[in-house]
Amino acid sequence: MIVPRLIERKRDGGRLEPAEIRELIQGYTAGEVPDYQMASLLMAIYFKGLDRPEMNVLMEAMLESGEKLDFSRLPLQRVDKHSTGGVGDKTSLILAPLIASLNVAVPMMSGRGLGHTGGTLDKLESIPGFRTRLSLAETERQVAKIGCAMIGQTDEIVPADRRLYALRDATATVEVIPLIAASIMSKKISESLTGLVLDIKRGSGSFLPRLEDELELARAMIDLGANHSCPVVALLTAMDRPLGEACGNALEIIEAVDVLKGSGPADLIEVTMALGAEMLVLAEITSTREDARAMMDDAIASGRALTKFEEIVKAQGGDARVVRNPTLLAKAPHCANFEAKRGGVIQSVEPRAVGYGVIRLGGGRTTMEETVDHAVGFVIKAKPGQRVEKGQPLATIHARTADGIEIGRSALDEAIRIGDESVSLLPLVSHRVTARGVEVLSVSA
Amino acid sequence: MIVPRLIERKRDGGRLEPAEIRELIQGYTAGEVPDYQMASLLMAIYFKGLDRPEMNVLMEAMLESGEKLDFSRLPLQRVDKHSTGGVGDKTSLILAPLIASLNVAVPMMSGRGLGHTGGTLDKLESIPGFRTRLSLAETERQVAKIGCAMIGQTDEIVPADRRLYALRDATATVEVIPLIAASIMSKKISESLTGLVLDIKRGSGSFLPRLEDELELARAMIDLGANHSCPVVALLTAMDRPLGEACGNALEIIEAVDVLKGSGPADLIEVTMALGAEMLVLAEITSTREDARAMMDDAIASGRALTKFEEIVKAQGGDARVVRNPTLLAKAPHCANFEAKRGGVIQSVEPRAVGYGVIRLGGGRTTMEETVDHAVGFVIKAKPGQRVEKGQPLATIHARTADGIEIGRSALDEAIRIGDESVSLLPLVSHRVTARGVEVLSVSA
Repeated sequence: MIVPRLIERKRDGGRLEPAEIRELIQGYTAGEVPDYQMASLLMAIYFKGLDRPEMNVLMEAMLESGEKLDFSRLPLQRVDKHSTGGVGDKTSLILAPLIASLNVAVPMMSGRGLGHTGGTLDKLESIPGFRTRLSLAETERQVAKIGCAMIGQTDEIVPADRRLYALRDATATVEVIPLIAASIMSKKISESLTGLVLDIKRGSGSFLPRLEDELELARAMIDLGANHSCPVVALLTAMDRPLGEACGNALEIIEAVDVLKGSGPADLIEVTMALGAEMLVLAEITSTREDARAMMDDAIASGRALTKFEEIVKAQGGDARVVRNPTLLAKAPHCANFEAKRGGVIQSVEPRAVGYGVIRLGGGRTTMEETVDHAVGFVIKAKPGQRVEKGQPLATIHARTADGIEIGRSALDEAIRIGDESVSLLPLVSHRVTARGVEVLSVSA
Repeated sequence: MIVPRLIERKRDGGRLEPAEIRELIQGYTAGEVPDYQMASLLMAIYFKGLDRPEMNVLMEAMLESGEKLDFSRLPLQRVDKHSTGGVGDKTSLILAPLIASLNVAVPMMSGRGLGHTGGTLDKLESIPGFRTRLSLAETERQVAKIGCAMIGQTDEIVPADRRLYALRDATATVEVIPLIAASIMSKKISESLTGLVLDIKRGSGSFLPRLEDELELARAMIDLGANHSCPVVALLTAMDRPLGEACGNALEIIEAVDVLKGSGPADLIEVTMALGAEMLVLAEITSTREDARAMMDDAIASGRALTKFEEIVKAQGGDARVVRNPTLLAKAPHCANFEAKRGGVIQSVEPRAVGYGVIRLGGGRTTMEETVDHAVGFVIKAKPGQRVEKGQPLATIHARTADGIEIGRSALDEAIRIGDESVSLLPLVSHRVTARGVEVLSVSA
């Protein structure tokens, strides 16, 4: 294999053969193919793409670089949910215990915050003692015992993807649909799932703002899953505004627990229930999404979902008392209201401005090495389209310092626009994509 | 400077600012910008290009990474000739002594063979003892004393270009006109030239086979030179067949010496004289190319050009006796004729097949680490368009071993096609490009 010749062929619009892709990924994982050649190839792929067979082999080669979870003796279906990343998106925190409380195994692998979006692992680590770095053996044992584990990617799982993802982040080659699809699916297939639900975010706060790209990502991942007996259902959901009200790690744990207790913001509940219904139908717990919703309502009303969350927290070393008493979570020393500067209609609550605001407060990171302040963030009650009075509180800022309050205020000034126009929003759940095709669920909010 | 943001901007078709390019090249030379980010940026530049201001700043930033030759006390004009690389192209070996013998300083910086083309340094090193690694100070002294030095790029000269070129070679990002132009011109400007003649090869054996790309390269280098008081004249010359007859290091020294003695193949003489006339006019030794040719004829007939070559060889530690007695050069132990398998018209002598044949004989390299067998190669008398009889000798193969003869035979089988059609060839010198525009010199051979 002469790597520059492969790069040249891809650069000129040609195809890479399966054996070449395997050798390339093996060589890269072994440190024989240098980062600079892979970086140049990735940029060529950015411009020339990968076709389905190339993407498939890439995913398999990455998968072969690591270990898989072994659930061969587990008599349960195994489903996970993956989101392309949003602001205020805490559906994973709700769905893992909720679905696990309904006799479905949920081996959930999540990421950390990067870019403007938060990460499930950072949120979970708001809970004192919570360990997200479980070994594969620990994960298998915990899923067998309580039906769920919430973990991060370890060195055992798809190491080729870990290295490639870091390289893509450093070389402006993240936004390539077949690479995104292969990266996500290699990790999901390594969980030995029997089904996967994708939450593909739409709108200004999403990584892929064009609908055609979002549908293409869904189709690519559905195809990859189909080759590994892992049916995939994708929902396209709104990220033109934050999901729910809380944005920030501990604040989002509190809001997720609220939903598990039967309250919480309506938009968050709607998206969570839509995703959960797909998970239950994929797991063949029931055949209709209506039934599935009723089962989830019951799991919440009966307290079983909340109890499952306590079990998970306890199993992973966390202080389970926070579930009943969220005041035990880290609290920001400084809190202030953010008020409407004028009366009118909320034109927008921009997720990127909110997400970067959380980072500037210390609640996120710009490099993987930074630590996260779990207490800080925003609770934004205001929603686009809502009519407000001058002086009306729109949000609460939670900051480490008095200066932080001003930083938060300027972020919200940028994020929240008030005007006089009526506002058109994306539907909370707009499209459903399966192996059979695309269903349009709703065309307006 | 956040490098991934710069890569992203170029990837999306944007411009890099002068300060950004300078910081990038300084950071890269200092080892602060890693190869993988530069590789990704280079591939983005492959697809999106660099505009004139970007290319200019890139060249200046590379130039600033190293030292320049200092000829401030030399009362002579200083010209060099650069070729984009061909097979059998030994014009540098002739022009350096020829032009230096006419009161023009020729500080000539050349490269090694890579790809299918040979390199002037490898050819010179066929001469026992010849040193091509001179320091800047040695080069300055030698040029002041005898008017010429023939050297390779050292660590002092444009180190940023050395690193970038090696990276481009390993990442399939060589064929980018503004990068080629900036790379060549940074080295040429560091020679403190008062004029430069470019030999841009055309046809199947050249790196840039499209005429529009060749003209664009000429224009880019003319622009770069104009910004540094170094007028550039470019000739477009034929590389749809090898130049001259000898292909291989010592064999090409012999042929170059033949020309300096007043004999040698007509095509080689024609291209050499066309380039030399431009050098003399640029150096203001005479104002017409006709006059310049007469001066060169005289320098050869009088033996002054040959004597200058002896001076150069001696000054650089080589055995100058080889100039009068070429049998002192390394000789291949095995020689054989290559004969026409049928009668007819020579359809082609493919430079790439010949060049790769020399490499397979050991006379070139596929990585910079390999050593070169100076003795091996071909002397190909056959020219496309020529009518031949079956069994007529077309070439001589010079090989290290008996097996080598077979290797050479199969390379020539591939390179030399005989048929019945008449043949259309590129004119030896087809275009002349200066700051004033493009002159078409000849449209057919």
